[in-house]
Amino acid sequence: MEKRFFVEGSDKIDVGSKIILTEDEHTHLSRIMRLRVGDEVECFQDGSDVFVCKILMETKTATTLEVLDSYPCLANPKVDITLFQALPKLDKLELITQKLCEIGVSRIVPFYSKFCIAKPNEQKVERLKKIVVSACKQCGRTSLLQIDLPKKIAEILPMLKNFDFVLFANEKEDAKNIGSALLDMGKEIKGKKRPSIAYVVGSEGGFSPEEIDTLSKVCTSVSFGKRILRTETASIFVASLLCGMLEV
Amino acid sequence: MEKRFFVEGSDKIDVGSKIILTEDEHTHLSRIMRLRVGDEVECFQDGSDVFVCKILMETKTATTLEVLDSYPCLANPKVDITLFQALPKLDKLELITQKLCEIGVSRIVPFYSKFCIAKPNEQKVERLKKIVVSACKQCGRTSLLQIDLPKKIAEILPMLKNFDFVLFANEKEDAKNIGSALLDMGKEIKGKKRPSIAYVVGSEGGFSPEEIDTLSKVCTSVSFGKRILRTETASIFVASLLCGMLEV
Repeated sequence: MEKRFFVEGSDKIDVGSKIILTEDEHTHLSRIMRLRVGDEVECFQDGSDVFVCKILMETKTATTLEVLDSYPCLANPKVDITLFQALPKLDKLELITQKLCEIGVSRIVPFYSKFCIAKPNEQKVERLKKIVVSACKQCGRTSLLQIDLPKKIAEILPMLKNFDFVLFANEKEDAKNIGSALLDMGKEIKGKKRPSIAYVVGSEGGFSPEEIDTLSKVCTSVSFGKRILRTETASIFVASLLCGMLEV
Repeated sequence: MEKRFFVEGSDKIDVGSKIILTEDEHTHLSRIMRLRVGDEVECFQDGSDVFVCKILMETKTATTLEVLDSYPCLANPKVDITLFQALPKLDKLELITQKLCEIGVSRIVPFYSKFCIAKPNEQKVERLKKIVVSACKQCGRTSLLQIDLPKKIAEILPMLKNFDFVLFANEKEDAKNIGSALLDMGKEIKGKKRPSIAYVVGSEGGFSPEEIDTLSKVCTSVSFGKRILRTETASIFVASLLCGMLEV
């Protein structure tokens, strides 16, 4: 996937279409990868097929490509998995974003909980989007991992009801281990064409007792065993289990 | 686990024993956490119980503790999982070390393969040891994740024969998905008191065709599906699946 470039927007692209790369992608193609007129590259839009292109024209500021062929992208997730992540510090959210994109998660919904330390801003969303595009190029998927703007905890509660199964990483939970919860989940979603699964992970400070109560009522609480995982480790750990077992 | 300190060596420690902290741990206790004579903390040796201690004496250069009580550590891994990791760049090996310690892996054996870029040195081992101690404090285990000195690929081949089950993350493998390989493994190791499992992951450059041939002969080759994972993602992904499903 080394020579793959992202195309913004959702304009229909077909064989014969011309594509003008955004400035970022143009710079990457011409200055870093030093590709020239006539070279072949691949392009994709969010969720599209993969387009095989030839470089038609290259100036200092722009690259124009022509689509020669296309083929379906087999690397896109086959199950919709959404992480509801209580906002961690930025470097952790960046790591989570990169790893979950590779592993096969579809969407991250960051939210504020009582003990969150991090404060969000617009710039971060832009930065995370770049990480997503880069991870898509790395792993081969064309459907971007979607990252919502941060929500309040009260806003996510009704959203959780729309999923076929919701796991809640509850560090206070001694009973149900994640391994057996996942086997139960497998039975429950069996036969569904494209199941939707969500999981909820706390920030560095964890959840307040009231938040744990509220979340426990709408989610299946699970324990990760006897070790306490950092927030970013927990999010990657559960993503791996879900995507690995469900062959996402 | 905030006030937990690591004690070097394997001298037998009992209730009533005196412990003198190493310089690193002393500095952490006195300068960063600002704990004082009479305060209670926890200590551990590699694989030991957890020792509840009181600070007896504190000077500029040393802290002496007295052991008041001890209790068994329930957070230590119950299955022996070893990662054979073709040497990646240092920042990736650091991330793998931290995450695998939390998730529950017992040992990492770095090794050289044909396409490795990274070169090892002694300093790195010291640095990785610090990451391990810190991750143990975070997640609550007392048994350190063991990190071997880097080996040659020819040296690891006979080692792989000593495990009950060995997985090989083979990006050329289209057949067996990791999810179903793990279910097979579960049947195979069922009833074993303390099964030992290994898995082999390539570096950024992957393996040469000859290396893939050799490893395929002594391991169960598995595919991770249609996406290509970075080396550190692959190592964390498989650790999560193994530790989650086996309730390590």
